[in-house]
Amino acid sequence: MAPSYKIASIPGDGIGPEVVSATIQVVEKLAKTLGAFQIEFTHIPWGTAYYKETGRYLSEDALDTLRKFDAGIFGAVGAPDVPDHISLWGLLLAIRGPLQLYANVRPVRTFPGTKCPLNTATEGIDWMLVRENSEGEYSGQGGRSHVGQPWEAATEVAMFTRVGIERIMRFAFETARSRPRKLLTVVTKSNSMRNGMVLWDEVAASVAQDFPDVTWDKMLVDAMTVRMVTKPQSIDTIVGTNLHMDILSDLAAALAGSIGVAPSSNLDPTRKNPSLFEPVHGSAFDITGKGVANPVATFWSAAEMLKWIGEKNAADKLMTCVENVCAAGILTPDLGGTSSTQEVVDAVCVEIGK
Amino acid sequence: MAPSYKIASIPGDGIGPEVVSATIQVVEKLAKTLGAFQIEFTHIPWGTAYYKETGRYLSEDALDTLRKFDAGIFGAVGAPDVPDHISLWGLLLAIRGPLQLYANVRPVRTFPGTKCPLNTATEGIDWMLVRENSEGEYSGQGGRSHVGQPWEAATEVAMFTRVGIERIMRFAFETARSRPRKLLTVVTKSNSMRNGMVLWDEVAASVAQDFPDVTWDKMLVDAMTVRMVTKPQSIDTIVGTNLHMDILSDLAAALAGSIGVAPSSNLDPTRKNPSLFEPVHGSAFDITGKGVANPVATFWSAAEMLKWIGEKNAADKLMTCVENVCAAGILTPDLGGTSSTQEVVDAVCVEIGK
Ligand SMILES: CC(C)[C@H](C(=O)O)[C@@H](O)C(=O)O
Ligand SMILES: CC(C)[C@H](C(=O)O)[C@@H](O)C(=O)O
Repeated sequence: MAPSYKIASIPGDGIGPEVVSATIQVVEKLAKTLGAFQIEFTHIPWGTAYYKETGRYLSEDALDTLRKFDAGIFGAVGAPDVPDHISLWGLLLAIRGPLQLYANVRPVRTFPGTKCPLNTATEGIDWMLVRENSEGEYSGQGGRSHVGQPWEAATEVAMFTRVGIERIMRFAFETARSRPRKLLTVVTKSNSMRNGMVLWDEVAASVAQDFPDVTWDKMLVDAMTVRMVTKPQSIDTIVGTNLHMDILSDLAAALAGSIGVAPSSNLDPTRKNPSLFEPVHGSAFDITGKGVANPVATFWSAAEMLKWIGEKNAADKLMTCVENVCAAGILTPDLGGTSSTQEVVDAVCVEIGK
Repeated sequence: MAPSYKIASIPGDGIGPEVVSATIQVVEKLAKTLGAFQIEFTHIPWGTAYYKETGRYLSEDALDTLRKFDAGIFGAVGAPDVPDHISLWGLLLAIRGPLQLYANVRPVRTFPGTKCPLNTATEGIDWMLVRENSEGEYSGQGGRSHVGQPWEAATEVAMFTRVGIERIMRFAFETARSRPRKLLTVVTKSNSMRNGMVLWDEVAASVAQDFPDVTWDKMLVDAMTVRMVTKPQSIDTIVGTNLHMDILSDLAAALAGSIGVAPSSNLDPTRKNPSLFEPVHGSAFDITGKGVANPVATFWSAAEMLKWIGEKNAADKLMTCVENVCAAGILTPDLGGTSSTQEVVDAVCVEIGK
């Protein structure tokens, strides 16, 4: 019998509902056309509207709710009238850490229909970014004292554990090993930060011994931005902390020319918990409701999801169809095109049917 | 009588001595030619050789020693056989914070002889970066527990104070005000970091009220990298934390095409302590002793020093001469030229004499 998957759909805020609904249409068409598996999306209403009604971004049993699914697809969170740190810690960051989705994986490449802005990378860019997603600078620790006084002081505490570093490091080495060039760069900032960052260096050196077939090096995060600009072809897979890779992954997507189409996977590589797939872009309230949101980042995220749950053929087919549509110039305005979200959806569905 | 300045010269490690000695030659020639001021450089031997001899990177009375000078010029620190966090905390970071050199200023522009690698900035880049230089992620706080155990945990603590943020913010608004476009972008990461970063946002909004003539906006550090790549012309002055601007200033210099020539000023804007001027590049042991180190970043740093101590004419003259030499193609190998360090020095001295 064909396998059947249950997917949590969390559209969230802004253009989130538009790109998630676009993606569901495309994935349902794909499933129907291939006939190899069944897939069912269940709508979950978490987000700012839910928060305004209930005072919470997530339901109280959110983690248990999510655990009933094989995976989740997420749109965006954030609204102009709620401070970002409330909405993001209310929803996204309240899932990533607690569900131990410790590997945030971000493929970055120059995509059909996008242009690499770098003279140094005339053939475009193709990198794989691995971000630690459960600790470090996003531990949520720290505080403020003497609030509002001239002598106010505040801390942001980055918490690192050997377990946390080792598991993401192994994942990154495995990722690098699975790619043709078998190259990994470990990013830290251990010249100015002498505790967790030095531990990162030590763990990298020790895990590397189990991967003699992977060529790896170490770079400081500041120097890494220079290398990304000046020697893009020297890079393949990159791993680093939650904050460092947050920064480098945005930069990477911009350098590849593909910031509007960048996908991300929040993975629990142990597969105890469902993984969550989301576009890198945010809620984009300036274009919400206009029907022009670019759905490609969410399509790509869904393809990563299909791969993760075991439907690699379907994932490949989806990516081929999306790339064909982009290469044909059927693009939303952010990529210089004139198509609406629905026109892109329809074109991808036609491709799938071919 | 012509004013007379006493400058501490701290060449440090690697190519540091080569670029500092190049700079002293050029500045002495400039002083002699202009006849408007006297300048005396005093050699201070701090660095890795000093450390190997004495067990310390700095003398015990280093801060008092420095306070006897009007300013300092610094080369580089770091050696292959000493961990970076030892050498950097031994020397550079042991001066910046304790001397309260809280403003690290990094002008970034596409320089004659350098090429901007971005298609999005065909006319090149001209930005002013202001980095908080005394606290934040470089507070040196944190620790490691259960070292070497599987359950080891480590923290890096970023410490922010209202005073520390407010003074750099005022400095940045004043810097923005002094530039033609009067544009400032305040970089934080207050969506995921809820304490010191939110304090940054609050202080920015309050200081901005005193600068109604400056147009300012706020950006998350990850999004800022995207803007630097995709809309470079929308940027003028940027201010941010010690770590964020460490990263963004390297990126900026790479995007401008000028990483090899980037200067930096470590300023005490209250002028209680002497400020320290240094190239952004490091000790570069791979080319040390070959006579090909690029001295331009240190020349530019010296020009910033001359401006700071009050010799603006001399600073402008130095920059014009250096730019003419670069534009004439007299460049070290890192910029695609074939000249030696001394050839660049000689050419600049000839320009000065013209
Ligand atoms: C939404 C926000 C918390 C997030 C982050 O900073 O991690 C975003 O920038 C990302 O990259 O996923
Ligand atoms: C040398 C090192 C400590 C330093 C830093 O990280 O601040 C360097 O990268 C810089 O930008 O000045």
